[in-house]
Order: sequence, then C-alpha cells, then structure tokens
Amino acid sequence: MTASFTPNGIITLTTDFGTRDPFVGLMKGVILSRYMQAKLIDLTHEIPPYRPAVAGFWLARSWQYFPTGTIHLAVVDPGVGTDRGLVAITVEGQLFIAPDNGLLEEVAVSADRAEWRRVDLERLRPVLPTIASNTFHGRDIFAPLVAEIATGRLQVEQVGDRLDRLISKSARSFGDEIAGEIMVIDHFGNLITNIEALELQRIPEPKIHFHGQVFDLHRTYGAAKRGEVIALINSFGVLELAQAQGNAQTTLAATLGERVVVRGG
Amino acid sequence: MTASFTPNGIITLTTDFGTRDPFVGLMKGVILSRYMQAKLIDLTHEIPPYRPAVAGFWLARSWQYFPTGTIHLAVVDPGVGTDRGLVAITVEGQLFIAPDNGLLEEVAVSADRAEWRRVDLERLRPVLPTIASNTFHGRDIFAPLVAEIATGRLQVEQVGDRLDRLISKSARSFGDEIAGEIMVIDHFGNLITNIEALELQRIPEPKIHFHGQVFDLHRTYGAAKRGEVIALINSFGVLELAQAQGNAQTTLAATLGERVVVRGG
Amino acid sequence: MTASFTPNGIITLTTDFGTRDPFVGLMKGVILSRYMQAKLIDLTHEIPPYRPAVAGFWLARSWQYFPTGTIHLAVVDPGVGTDRGLVAITVEGQLFIAPDNGLLEEVAVSADRAEWRRVDLERLRPVLPTIASNTFHGRDIFAPLVAEIATGRLQVEQVGDRLDRLISKSARSFGDEIAGEIMVIDHFGNLITNIEALELQRIPEPKIHFHGQVFDLHRTYGAAKRGEVIALINSFGVLELAQAQGNAQTTLAATLGERVVVRGG
Repeated sequence: MTASFTPNGIITLTTDFGTRDPFVGLMKGVILSRYMQAKLIDLTHEIPPYRPAVAGFWLARSWQYFPTGTIHLAVVDPGVGTDRGLVAITVEGQLFIAPDNGLLEEVAVSADRAEWRRVDLERLRPVLPTIASNTFHGRDIFAPLVAEIATGRLQVEQVGDRLDRLISKSARSFGDEIAGEIMVIDHFGNLITNIEALELQRIPEPKIHFHGQVFDLHRTYGAAKRGEVIALINSFGVLELAQAQGNAQTTLAATLGERVVVRGG
Repeated sequence: MTASFTPNGIITLTTDFGTRDPFVGLMKGVILSRYMQAKLIDLTHEIPPYRPAVAGFWLARSWQYFPTGTIHLAVVDPGVGTDRGLVAITVEGQLFIAPDNGLLEEVAVSADRAEWRRVDLERLRPVLPTIASNTFHGRDIFAPLVAEIATGRLQVEQVGDRLDRLISKSARSFGDEIAGEIMVIDHFGNLITNIEALELQRIPEPKIHFHGQVFDLHRTYGAAKRGEVIALINSFGVLELAQAQGNAQTTLAATLGERVVVRGG
Repeated sequence: MTASFTPNGIITLTTDFGTRDPFVGLMKGVILSRYMQAKLIDLTHEIPPYRPAVAGFWLARSWQYFPTGTIHLAVVDPGVGTDRGLVAITVEGQLFIAPDNGLLEEVAVSADRAEWRRVDLERLRPVLPTIASNTFHGRDIFAPLVAEIATGRLQVEQVGDRLDRLISKSARSFGDEIAGEIMVIDHFGNLITNIEALELQRIPEPKIHFHGQVFDLHRTYGAAKRGEVIALINSFGVLELAQAQGNAQTTLAATLGERVVVRGG
C-alpha cells in the first residue's frame, strides 16, 4: 500500500486563540523547533470561542485552495483537559488534524472520500513529549504532532487506527422550502448562511426570507446600488445577505445562528 | 529593452479583509500553490472597508523599506464584480498591483517615475484560471496573477499595455495656510494627516488648528509631558497629532477625514 | 572565548503596535532587505500600549518553546525619542533585544544565568543607518540591528559592553499569604496572575480570594461545569481564574492590575 499523504511543508493553522496573546506564536515556535522548513499559514485565529462548527465550515471551503500535501491543524477545543480524543482525516492528498468534537465533519462531507484515523497518544509517546499541561494541547500535543508529520519522520498511518466513519450531509430542504442559518458574520458584516447553491437551484425564482423581509437573489455586489441589501451566492458557493458598500449585520440587526428561509417565488 | 522588474520572491499584502475570516489565508494558499518559495508579508488587512485611498496612503510610505524586486498586492475593491479594471505600476524596481480605483495614485506620486500598465485579463486567460467567482477577485484573480509574476514565468510587460498616466500632487496650500485632513487614526489613537513636512517648512512658526484648539509643533513624543497633546512630524514625514502615553483620538474626540489647518504663528 | 550566541534565522516580534497599521510589516521589510532568509514569527503585537512589563511576562514564558539561536525582538517603548538606552541579553543560547525600560527583567529571572549588554549605537554607526526618525525606532534601529545579528555579520559581543546586572525575583509571599495581581487578561477572558505554581505549593489547601469571592484550586478547565468559575495553574505555570466555556473577565467584572490573594484553607 502506498502512503495516502506526502507532506509539502505547508501547515495551516485555524484556532479560536485570537491574536492578543502569544498562543499562536508558541505553537509556531514548537513546530519550528522540530521542523525549521515549515511554511506556516494562518487561516484564522478568530473562530468564535468554543465553536468548532465554524472552524469546520471554513476549512471545508478552504482546503481546495491549497496544494496537495498541505497539513491543516484546527484547534477549537472546549473539551481540552477531558478525555475527548484527537482525529486525523485525509482528503484528496491533504491532511486535517483536530479534536474529535465534530469539527472535521463538514470537511469530510466536502470531498468524495475521507479516510479517518484516531490519534493514539499512547502509541505516539516515543515521538511526542510528556504532556506538560492540561490546558494547552495546541502547543503541547497538536504542534509537535503536525511537525513530526510535516518532516516526514512520522507517517499518517502511524498516528493511530483507521476509524470507520460515514458522515452524511444533513438535509435542510422540506418541500419547496429550504431552512438554513447564519453560520458566519464576516469582517464586512456579510451574513453567510449554510444554504448551498446546489440546494437553491431546485427552487424556481427563489425568495430569501429573513427577519420578516424578503430579498431577491442577485448576481454580484457590484450590480447593487450603494446601501442596498441583497442576497447572492457568494464566492464560497453559499447563500449570503450583504449590503452594497455597507454592513448587513448592523443594518439588519442580525446575530450568529439566526434562521434564514428560502421559498419559491 | 531590459525588463523593468525582476522579482525577489517577496509579496506584500494590503487589504480591507480583516483577520476574522480566512480570506487572506486563502490568497496565500493560492499563491503558494503556484509558487512555494513566495515570502508573504502582511502589510495590513485592516484598511477601513472600501477606502482605497487609505491603502494608497500607507503603500506610498511603505515601499521604500522593501528591497528591489518586491511585489505589493493591494485589494481594497468596492467595485468588485463590476467592470472596473486592474492596474500594475512599476516604481524604482518594485511592482504594485491593485484595482483601478485610484488606490495606486499616491504611490505613483511618491516616486520620480512610475510606469503604468493596465492588466488585460483576456490576454492572460492562458495562465489565469477561469474566473470562478464574481466577488472574491483577491483569491481568484489577484493572487494567481502575482504568483505567476513572482515565479518569473510571467513578465510585467506581458500583463497588458502601457497606460499614459500622469498623476500630479494636489495642492493643499493657499497663501499662508495649509488645509489637510486626518487620513489615518492609528492603533495608538494618533491622528495622522496628509500634510507633509515639506509643505510645513514654507510656513514660519507654524501653529496647528484642530477642533478650535491650537497646537505647537514638537520634535518628538518623548519630549512631551505624559498626557500632553502635541503636533509633530511623524516617522512617515507627515503632520500628526499625538498624546504622550495617551490616546489623541479619544482625548480630542476626533474622527477620520476631519479637517486640520496650519497657519503661521 | 566562544560566541555565546549562534543565530538560527528565527526572529520573533513582540510589540504594542497592533495590526491595524503597517508598522509591523515595515519592520519585516527592513529585516528582509538585509536578510532575505529570516524566519519571522509574530509573538503578539497587542501588548497593552506602553506596558513593557506585560511583554516581559509573556517573553519569560515563551522563549522555552523556541530553538537555540532564536532572536526575540520586543518593542514596547514609551520612552522612544528620549535618551533611554537599548539592551541585549543572552539566555541559554537565545538572544533578546529591547528598550532598556525593565521589559527584559523577567526574562533574565526566568533562566539560571543571563548575560546583559548595553547596545552602543555610536559604535554600531558603521552598520546601522543614520537615524531617520525620532519616533519609529522599531523600524529604523531595532529591525536593522536584529537583521545584522541574524545574518551573522554582527556578533552579539560587538553590539556593546557587558552590563553587570543582577535581577532578583520580587517576593510576594508574607506569612501564609501570597499577594499577586492580574498581569494579563487573555483572549478568552481568563485572568492570568503573576502568582507561580512554586509559590502556591507552600500553602496547604490554598483558597483564592478575588473581589470578595473565594475559589478552590482545580486541575483543568474540562473538569469544571459549563459556566463555573475556577482557579487553576495554567499551562504557563501561573495561577489563573477562568470560567469554563465562558468569559471570567466579564463575569467577574475584572480589570488589569487588580489584586489576587491566596490564603491557606
């Protein structure tokens, strides 16, 4: 059997650690201590605290832009210090490592085939350090683990046994209606939903309902008049509410997790 | 004819994308997919949304600190999805690429000579991907474009035709008075204006007028007493209002774009 | 005598510059202009403005995760533009450079032996540029200085004379009581004190007193119920007040610098 993953040296980092403290810098120090050639890319460190699903949402729509051989490390870990496990999945020649808390499910769904493994810390004891802290596994476990894999000294097949997991997409369509929610409010105040372009295609002349208002589906931001709120399929293939040169979050008084419904016109 | 630009591998990024979402990380993924050796430097991703002039203000005062051969990519792009073009300018052996919305004008003015080119996406179709999104040109057009140039596979001369553009500095002096505005409020709350040291020299014993108060021109922060608000020529060669070990923005209740006037003493 | 420091190419950056403006990017441009192979790692740029002690707190607990030969540059510099000096210290094969304002004292205490040197800008004039600005020494003095050392062209022994400095840890224990303060409020709202695990061990059944409430010492976040506020020794070896999956800062209405006391049970 050939190896399912050959590292290219790139390691992306996705966390809810923020940038106020040196937490991310310390993970990078640990990685460079083991692998000076690592190419470290910050995806984001501002996942809302303790919301693994948001990290999964972005990772599932980001990996396609990285080359084969990239390692994606995601640490959003409300259960740190308990006995929650760690998982690794391989998707089209890229590797993802995260706490086993559902974070990687949407990544698995985003590809035709995902190979799951549990990370067996007992078996890895010879290459990983004694666990120094009960609270900062990003620095003390995840960082040395991805560094060892990135160097090629540790094979993905060695981190632990295969897991037999089949994740399927949750259906959100009922009859002529699709019900989704606001998954992300981005830097511009755009309201990004989990309703996908493919789902929308089923519905003739779709109208988007939110907070008692109804929005038409537009083609792009630029086509809208300044200040107009529009619905569009964004560059990640999902439905988004946006205000042209404005902030839809404040204009619509929207919050994370609110319901968005699509119905035929 | 010799090439006007030889890449050194450094690509700086300036955007209004913020760091909350993975937008910048995705641009880096696209660049590394085409050019693994790229040295990616974040200039800032917190340009106020949709304010290309602020990006231009900083780029015009930043490029001097980078080596010959650096590529500066700036994406502050309120017109994304419309038919606004893209431009490239070469200034003293460095290359700048941005939407054609005025962003690069101050960069052109900051050097003796700037060579402008329009970016011809039709001509570049063989090397650039089919345009996948109407809204994220940073990821889908700008990132692969700068990567191709950084590798040396694409010459600046090949991106499109020369443009015959002459940008001249706008005069802000009238008689004994200079009228400027607050261009940037920085992280420390310093109020950075667009009034330059050279303009100030023409005025004997200059007094700075703002919000009905009058300030003397000081030499440095350190010379001021803690809490004192002073005017000084900052390290970028422009007039700034600052509070020693304090925050001038909150102390003076200042906002972006407000008028600052200098008159003789 | 053998050199006490051999650079490995890594330079970490710790400042209070924030990320809104291109200040950090400019320091990186200056460093790369002199040393293209530099590996630049951001530790944090969000030290509270003008608080060198917070930078020192983090550096003293961070350097252990970087390899021998790393240079740590810290610029939190309320006295910029006055005649405050610059210092360099060598600690277990790593080098730290900062303004001489107390920032590096806790780093010196964190190791068995620290070698102090003053940075003699007069002597360095041949390799450092004419000082261009009175206000941005990070860009104009510190950045070129660390770049020259990182390349190996400038030895630590050449930056200036040895300083005979002995810093000792300040005692915070009196009888059965330890009095500390909140040094850092992190991204998660955790209240991180300067009370160390070693000090706590002296006290049987320690109880933590803050704002009139009393907290027990727990082993980890994960063991607590959601919403519970607990005290624990964190992954940096100091006492911390944290709320499980919540924000202790807002729940306890805490602010930086407030007093935390430990007494026997």
